[in-house]
Amino acid sequence: MTQAQQSALYGPVAEDLILVEDLLESVKRVELAPLRLMLEHALEPRGKRLRPALVLLAGTFGDYNLNRLVPLGTAIELLHTASLVHDDVVDGAESRRGRPTANSVFDNALTVLLGDFMFATAAEMVTRTGSLPVTRLFALALMKMTTGELDQDAAAFDVGRDIQHYLWRIGGKTAALFGHSTQGGALLAECTDSQVEALRSYGYNIGMAFQIVDDILDFTGDEGEMGKPAGGDLLEGTITLPALFYLESAPQRNPVRQFLSSDQQRAEMLPEALSAVVQSDAIQRSQAMAQEFIDRALEGLSGLEESPAHRTLKELSGYVLSRRS
Amino acid sequence: MTQAQQSALYGPVAEDLILVEDLLESVKRVELAPLRLMLEHALEPRGKRLRPALVLLAGTFGDYNLNRLVPLGTAIELLHTASLVHDDVVDGAESRRGRPTANSVFDNALTVLLGDFMFATAAEMVTRTGSLPVTRLFALALMKMTTGELDQDAAAFDVGRDIQHYLWRIGGKTAALFGHSTQGGALLAECTDSQVEALRSYGYNIGMAFQIVDDILDFTGDEGEMGKPAGGDLLEGTITLPALFYLESAPQRNPVRQFLSSDQQRAEMLPEALSAVVQSDAIQRSQAMAQEFIDRALEGLSGLEESPAHRTLKELSGYVLSRRS
Repeated sequence: MTQAQQSALYGPVAEDLILVEDLLESVKRVELAPLRLMLEHALEPRGKRLRPALVLLAGTFGDYNLNRLVPLGTAIELLHTASLVHDDVVDGAESRRGRPTANSVFDNALTVLLGDFMFATAAEMVTRTGSLPVTRLFALALMKMTTGELDQDAAAFDVGRDIQHYLWRIGGKTAALFGHSTQGGALLAECTDSQVEALRSYGYNIGMAFQIVDDILDFTGDEGEMGKPAGGDLLEGTITLPALFYLESAPQRNPVRQFLSSDQQRAEMLPEALSAVVQSDAIQRSQAMAQEFIDRALEGLSGLEESPAHRTLKELSGYVLSRRS
Repeated sequence: MTQAQQSALYGPVAEDLILVEDLLESVKRVELAPLRLMLEHALEPRGKRLRPALVLLAGTFGDYNLNRLVPLGTAIELLHTASLVHDDVVDGAESRRGRPTANSVFDNALTVLLGDFMFATAAEMVTRTGSLPVTRLFALALMKMTTGELDQDAAAFDVGRDIQHYLWRIGGKTAALFGHSTQGGALLAECTDSQVEALRSYGYNIGMAFQIVDDILDFTGDEGEMGKPAGGDLLEGTITLPALFYLESAPQRNPVRQFLSSDQQRAEMLPEALSAVVQSDAIQRSQAMAQEFIDRALEGLSGLEESPAHRTLKELSGYVLSRRS
């Protein structure tokens, strides 16, 4: 994402995000050469910085103190990136957004340790906020993320789980850290309890919608825009919302179930499974559910005073829903 | 280690270590069944609990508040265990102390996430101390540990490193967390600056000696007592102090250098490399260096007031030096 796009998307806090970039840059400056090389690789791609933006936006509702908010935004972005580094090891992924993963450039062993170093750096960074409660919530968010990831791995190819289970998992895997971004930002800005809760709820629900859209894009996305072919989730046995909606209404014997229960030739069976989902109403129903979470997120906002940041948060919800990559 | 042995070794704090056991036990109580199973496996073996004991012993020099000291001791033990879990993934180790490793029972992917969950739990646990500085030092200790491990991996089979480099590495890999145990305990007990520094130095130097003894035992240890065959380090290309002392004085052409530069039949060449080191004066010189660190540790203690804990710390240094497993 270019700075101009960030500026359009993040409004009043877009310029301050450069401070997060600077702090992220400083993380790369370690003495040990092989570690420095790996950190540069892992931190090179300029992501959307959505989570740091949420931290800063939430912070505008109280005492907007960048000395506290920027370390939190940076810590959360680091935590997010570290978790992707480990996820790619866990999944044996060779590329992400069109770039080779750390585990494919270096090796699994070194990449596990790279992720550990990034987790530790993120933990040190969050203590720079000066807030023990925010530090504690940060650790809890990581516990939830890891539990969600573990569950995804442990439940792979298991068609016995339902939508409730899926929502619980993505709540941990993705929404917890979004919720911590806005909650943490609000806590550091010394917002009132009701502001903190409204912003936490906004972040959490935006995170739920974000993950559902991600899971939809894995069925409908364009390889060029996404930087990866469609169907990756299904291929790993991760049964996401579109597949669950499809399985709910499809006949017992269907291409998705056949795909998931087959032990071989999965790659060949994938296109049929994907198009079965895409041609059903599962995508539409998933979009409707993402919209529901967006509605909940906006509900949380309704009690907060109007401001440029308030308008930006509203517009962000539209972006989360309509994004194509 | 049995409770009776702990009692003899840890004197006045031995009984309070049961509170660390209880808190560790509580960590296993998670809802997600596969995670619970993995945590039970990883936390089952009753380790020496040397680090938690150091936390408590250091705490006796000030305000001995178990509500703060026990969470730190537990967090440090968790961090230590989590790092072993990841090290075993990194090394592809199949057993540790005679038990199958987590990565050999479950798989690498799930074990990476298990370690992450344990790191996150340790981070949450350390915030229960109520001290942001101790939490920050905890994160810094993990950064050092990971850097040391990374270096060990990156420098494998490289005979171009010297003893200075080795000491730097084990300082990060092992001694940092020992130092944090006594420093953190002293900080939580609100000791004076000079007490904190004396105790930190004691912990750090004990940690250095501990790792050197570990590295000696990898050459001289009894498989029955150690739960693993000798020579594991060399086989992984980890060049520790005994090997470095040996290489320093051996002729250019020697069995250790030949072993390290060979690409094949390493397992067959190992016994000769091991016995070359054991029959040289390298073990003795390594023991002398461990003794030097013990002396430095005791020097730190000399400024502290006499007490049962003070005596225990003195005796512990003897144990660290003479232990056989």
